[in-house]
Amino acid sequence: MKIYLLDLGSLVIDRSDVLWHIDVGTAVRFPVYGVYVDHPEGKFIFDTGYDLDHVNKVLPFELPEQTPEQTIPAQLAKIGVRPEEINYVINSHFHFDHVGGNRFLTNATLLTSKLELRSSLVPEPFERLGYSDLSFYTRGMKVEYLEGDVELAKGLSLFQTAGHTIGHLSMLAEPEGRRPMIFAGDAAYTYETLDRMIIGGFHLDPIDSISALKRIKAVAKQHDAEIFPSHEMEPWLKWKHAPEFYGA
Amino acid sequence: MKIYLLDLGSLVIDRSDVLWHIDVGTAVRFPVYGVYVDHPEGKFIFDTGYDLDHVNKVLPFELPEQTPEQTIPAQLAKIGVRPEEINYVINSHFHFDHVGGNRFLTNATLLTSKLELRSSLVPEPFERLGYSDLSFYTRGMKVEYLEGDVELAKGLSLFQTAGHTIGHLSMLAEPEGRRPMIFAGDAAYTYETLDRMIIGGFHLDPIDSISALKRIKAVAKQHDAEIFPSHEMEPWLKWKHAPEFYGA
Repeated sequence: MKIYLLDLGSLVIDRSDVLWHIDVGTAVRFPVYGVYVDHPEGKFIFDTGYDLDHVNKVLPFELPEQTPEQTIPAQLAKIGVRPEEINYVINSHFHFDHVGGNRFLTNATLLTSKLELRSSLVPEPFERLGYSDLSFYTRGMKVEYLEGDVELAKGLSLFQTAGHTIGHLSMLAEPEGRRPMIFAGDAAYTYETLDRMIIGGFHLDPIDSISALKRIKAVAKQHDAEIFPSHEMEPWLKWKHAPEFYGA
Repeated sequence: MKIYLLDLGSLVIDRSDVLWHIDVGTAVRFPVYGVYVDHPEGKFIFDTGYDLDHVNKVLPFELPEQTPEQTIPAQLAKIGVRPEEINYVINSHFHFDHVGGNRFLTNATLLTSKLELRSSLVPEPFERLGYSDLSFYTRGMKVEYLEGDVELAKGLSLFQTAGHTIGHLSMLAEPEGRRPMIFAGDAAYTYETLDRMIIGGFHLDPIDSISALKRIKAVAKQHDAEIFPSHEMEPWLKWKHAPEFYGA
């Protein structure tokens, strides 16, 4: 299993959106990335970034920066993979900055919980902007519904971390010759989120959001895994980016 | 039944705390007030403001402004009532800016839900500052536990508006010779909250918070009542303040 981090651009939000109620009025630029897992049992992508046109149109205040290279097709091209070769796409959740590249994965089966899909299509009022890019879904497309924690393939699994959204999922990958990796998704934007146990300012359920942080830490401890938060610039810049990869 | 609005000072929060995610980084000063109801069946107080020392010590960043006249004893003195004459105290919820004057009401029975009292004593991590002033409660004090919607006295009732906190209550008063009055508490900080249906940035449950707004509007419609939000300067300045009163 090889694990590639795909650079999909960056956005700006307030620090109080990263850490609820902290440093209100301080803008923070953060990375948006996807994870491509090349596994003997299939080709998986976890999160696909945002669609630049969509953000420019609907959320221009998040000041998107995305070069043509920072898209799913261009990132996969670096590895020699065509988007139509991807077998499965999983989104930690269906917010616009995690689903924007799904539409390129024309042969992929979408793996999701019914809850998350339903809520993205019929959101709460305060979730409308989050769930504003529905290009990832068309009725009749290939979907498999997940329940609970799920093993996707040997050494690759999803676990439930609801709170940020109703069906949020994090991913655990256990590549050979390397410490296991947890891709937290927006259950943990940053390491500070985990250290201080302060949830983000976007959330469906604050109590569940805290439980999700605890769960990520518990799974990390159980597997001696390294946690990769979703939206923090400094560590992101130090990680390997595609075409480099983790695992073997 | 006579209804007196008690001026208990003011505080500053961010506009994004008033309207979740709106105008981040814009400070807003808002009033804090209580409601004294002089009723043939008893003397009631709904919300008692904040304790200045507590806020200066624990939340000085909310920039409290409170003169000696803007306290429960001084406000009641204007009406010729001593704090120990109050029979019942109800807090919309137990956040510090709604309970600070309870300790002066030495003979009053506290009317609360078990849920709200329990959560104030054992809060969620993100509720710690909100529930930081526990001076309103001592074990063994006179408490009556409420369940659901409750009639306190003829034409005076409480109805459930959970969301901001787990057991939030709003009050409906139907004085003679006047349109009924709804004291929304922090279920609706401002009229803009109600108009735009945007909840505050402090909350336990966003979905319930929206339902609470709907409930307030429904109760208002049913009784043709005027809604009094908790924390908005402009309308507050136009309302009658003690020793003036509503009703007869």
